[in-house]
Amino acid sequence: MTTLTQEALIEQLSAIVGTDKVRTDADSLETFGKDWTKIYPPKPSAIVFPKTTEQVQKIVLLANEQSLSLVPSGGRTGLSAGAVAANGEVVISFDYMNQISEFNAIDRTVKCGAGVVTEQLQVFAEEQGLFYPVDFASAGSSQLGGNISTNAGGIKVIRYGMTRDWVAGLTVVTGKGDVLNLNKDLVKNNTGYDMRQLFIGGEGTLGFITEATMRLTRAPKNLTVLVLGVPEFDAIMSVLNTFQGRMDLTAFEFFSDKAMRKVVARGDVPAPFETPAEYYALLEFEAENEDHINTAMEIFEYCVEQGWVLDGVMSQSETQAANLWRLREDISETISEWTPYKNDISVVVSKVPPFLHEIEEVVTREYPDFEIIWFGHIGDGNLHLNILKPDDLAKEVFFQRCAKVSTWVFEIVEKYAGSVSAEHGVGLTKKPYLEYTRSKEELDYMRAVKLVFDPKNVMNPGKLIDL
Amino acid sequence: MTTLTQEALIEQLSAIVGTDKVRTDADSLETFGKDWTKIYPPKPSAIVFPKTTEQVQKIVLLANEQSLSLVPSGGRTGLSAGAVAANGEVVISFDYMNQISEFNAIDRTVKCGAGVVTEQLQVFAEEQGLFYPVDFASAGSSQLGGNISTNAGGIKVIRYGMTRDWVAGLTVVTGKGDVLNLNKDLVKNNTGYDMRQLFIGGEGTLGFITEATMRLTRAPKNLTVLVLGVPEFDAIMSVLNTFQGRMDLTAFEFFSDKAMRKVVARGDVPAPFETPAEYYALLEFEAENEDHINTAMEIFEYCVEQGWVLDGVMSQSETQAANLWRLREDISETISEWTPYKNDISVVVSKVPPFLHEIEEVVTREYPDFEIIWFGHIGDGNLHLNILKPDDLAKEVFFQRCAKVSTWVFEIVEKYAGSVSAEHGVGLTKKPYLEYTRSKEELDYMRAVKLVFDPKNVMNPGKLIDL
Repeated sequence: MTTLTQEALIEQLSAIVGTDKVRTDADSLETFGKDWTKIYPPKPSAIVFPKTTEQVQKIVLLANEQSLSLVPSGGRTGLSAGAVAANGEVVISFDYMNQISEFNAIDRTVKCGAGVVTEQLQVFAEEQGLFYPVDFASAGSSQLGGNISTNAGGIKVIRYGMTRDWVAGLTVVTGKGDVLNLNKDLVKNNTGYDMRQLFIGGEGTLGFITEATMRLTRAPKNLTVLVLGVPEFDAIMSVLNTFQGRMDLTAFEFFSDKAMRKVVARGDVPAPFETPAEYYALLEFEAENEDHINTAMEIFEYCVEQGWVLDGVMSQSETQAANLWRLREDISETISEWTPYKNDISVVVSKVPPFLHEIEEVVTREYPDFEIIWFGHIGDGNLHLNILKPDDLAKEVFFQRCAKVSTWVFEIVEKYAGSVSAEHGVGLTKKPYLEYTRSKEELDYMRAVKLVFDPKNVMNPGKLIDL
Repeated sequence: MTTLTQEALIEQLSAIVGTDKVRTDADSLETFGKDWTKIYPPKPSAIVFPKTTEQVQKIVLLANEQSLSLVPSGGRTGLSAGAVAANGEVVISFDYMNQISEFNAIDRTVKCGAGVVTEQLQVFAEEQGLFYPVDFASAGSSQLGGNISTNAGGIKVIRYGMTRDWVAGLTVVTGKGDVLNLNKDLVKNNTGYDMRQLFIGGEGTLGFITEATMRLTRAPKNLTVLVLGVPEFDAIMSVLNTFQGRMDLTAFEFFSDKAMRKVVARGDVPAPFETPAEYYALLEFEAENEDHINTAMEIFEYCVEQGWVLDGVMSQSETQAANLWRLREDISETISEWTPYKNDISVVVSKVPPFLHEIEEVVTREYPDFEIIWFGHIGDGNLHLNILKPDDLAKEVFFQRCAKVSTWVFEIVEKYAGSVSAEHGVGLTKKPYLEYTRSKEELDYMRAVKLVFDPKNVMNPGKLIDL
């Protein structure tokens, strides 16, 4: 712990970033000390707003000298408390490092400050006739530094991969206070350990990302959405396999009928068709020409013949495509009124059916009054498990029971060699469960790697892994 | 250095792998002690042929106890002496760990021993109606363990990326002798540092890869090749940019007229067309239907109108496509009779023209009698620079002068923020030049990371970086 008085701390931070870029008012401490988890009461010492990598470096050097704990803060949309400051930490907000620069049309790259908002980059790409393909519900406020530090995924991973795949180069300040320019934005660079990869998904525990060169790609043409009604979960996998064998999909999502009905009940979007089905698959693809539409129709008909699909609808316009997407994308917000217990888990795609059935069976047997809502990025093996609180159950009792559910779920995750965090990261909320996915030896190496870059444990201490 | 006698060494190794799996005959020592570089005289103590990860682990534990130096050996097609054993090391050959197993059609993954030959995996994928897209000249003998350890690239990187992008999971034995199963073959797994990424491209200096789960993908349809004659190098970039804006290319290669003429002079393949041009671009794309062909023709005509392209030819059959590819792929073998000085360098794509011009200018000014042959993966910013030995120049004098060329080239690489090794790795040959691409701080972190996984420096010591 630091021996600096609060006054001296503010003075030293102000000397680096200017007095107007250090905040200690109650509102700021409350706002910048937490993310979307809202479980841990925020309690930072101060919030600083650097404008340059050099200022970040100076803050890190100060932290090393004075034993400060630093927490990086982006759009604060995290779901694992990776950016929570609950122990008197100094929060470094990247809000002022939000410049987009050095766009290069041939390289299709652009330099972004860590504070650039995801949607800001998406819009910028669109203005250049290009496309930044990482997309998810919180794109309107999440920042790139956070996306990279948690290797954000989302709804287009099946085609475009995770954030990792779009980082051409990184500028980071390590825990020791060194500035590293990693990979120099090269496509090919086989000159030893690619340390850029450690900072991607490193949750700010090795160092803070201050700038990133991001890749852009060709804008997709005429994205077309197909929603299919599927009678049995297992058939979804056959549908996925059949489509993937003949077409490049840009998305393959699924949701249950229970989820869909709750969205439709709000009255904003219609049901996709009248035929009832237990599950729905949502596919998206580029319909560059009639051939693609015809191929999709052929595969659809084949799936119906096989009994895998009961009914389906294909978007005929952008508006209709957007409405079909809402059936999937509005689920999270719709079910929030039931105080859902949430988990973001994954297994290899082929194991999804028995994995899902086993979790469902255990929860249903132990808590028959719980309603389970499934949805997720099934093309990536990534399921979002949501359990709704029964109306007559007290919140406290519900959460107590859910703690038990967590243990059952993670035991099943371990049995299926899956991940306790597919895309949300570890932060504080998943830290106690890391051993269900990573071996003891792996965790020991992770600790040793942490100490290489951050020997004094000043960077986001207590997150991801305990030393 | 080990204090074990040669006799005791053979005995202990034999106890692990069996007497028939340890070789010390002169032929084996010569064969397994070197790669394609052939600069360093091989001098290993013994060659061992483990069959399981457990045996590899036991050898590594023995190496730690007895201070042995271990060198991993795959297909020995490396061009940077990464698998050379010139100092009494024990070579671990993965020739017997060449099983392909656990193919999963839904996950499109397959488990491969480190000794699986690249082409063996390509053929296996084809038999399943799928595709393993990493391809290069030495695919017939290079092994996956080596491909992964050097993050091999090749001729399809523009569409499919490097080997890194196809590794779903890795089993490694670290330098401390721990067996780690990294990433469990998951698509999404955000549970802390992705250490798999360190072993990819790690050149066996942190540990040895014993098994890998590789991803396969949809087989491409009707690959079509376009060879274009380009009057000026800079125009190649405009051609690349224009095609990429409207089509997904699977390859974008280039070669100079000098290179093409030498290939054609052998009489195996005809020139692409009669119009002379200084440079050629070779593009490949999937022509799924007439639309793609028409689009390619439209862009071609546009490029001619702009003066970027003088003439062109599009393959009408698989045979013709293969012949056009030979214009590019036969260069390396064709020029080998001139004892070429070779370098494998890269910059960001947009900087290729001035970078190439500057190197050419310096070499031509200083050594006007040297003939320069350029070719490479220009869509990735990766140039293969080849300087041919004048017939009347003694080999020794030529190589002395080339040492000077290396320094000039790498100074230009540094000026353009490029890489001294785009895809061949560092090994021994590029180790002295690493600082032209990586900063002193980066190299210090690399050393510290090495010590985390291999504290006694038993894994491929002296390669990549000195401690």
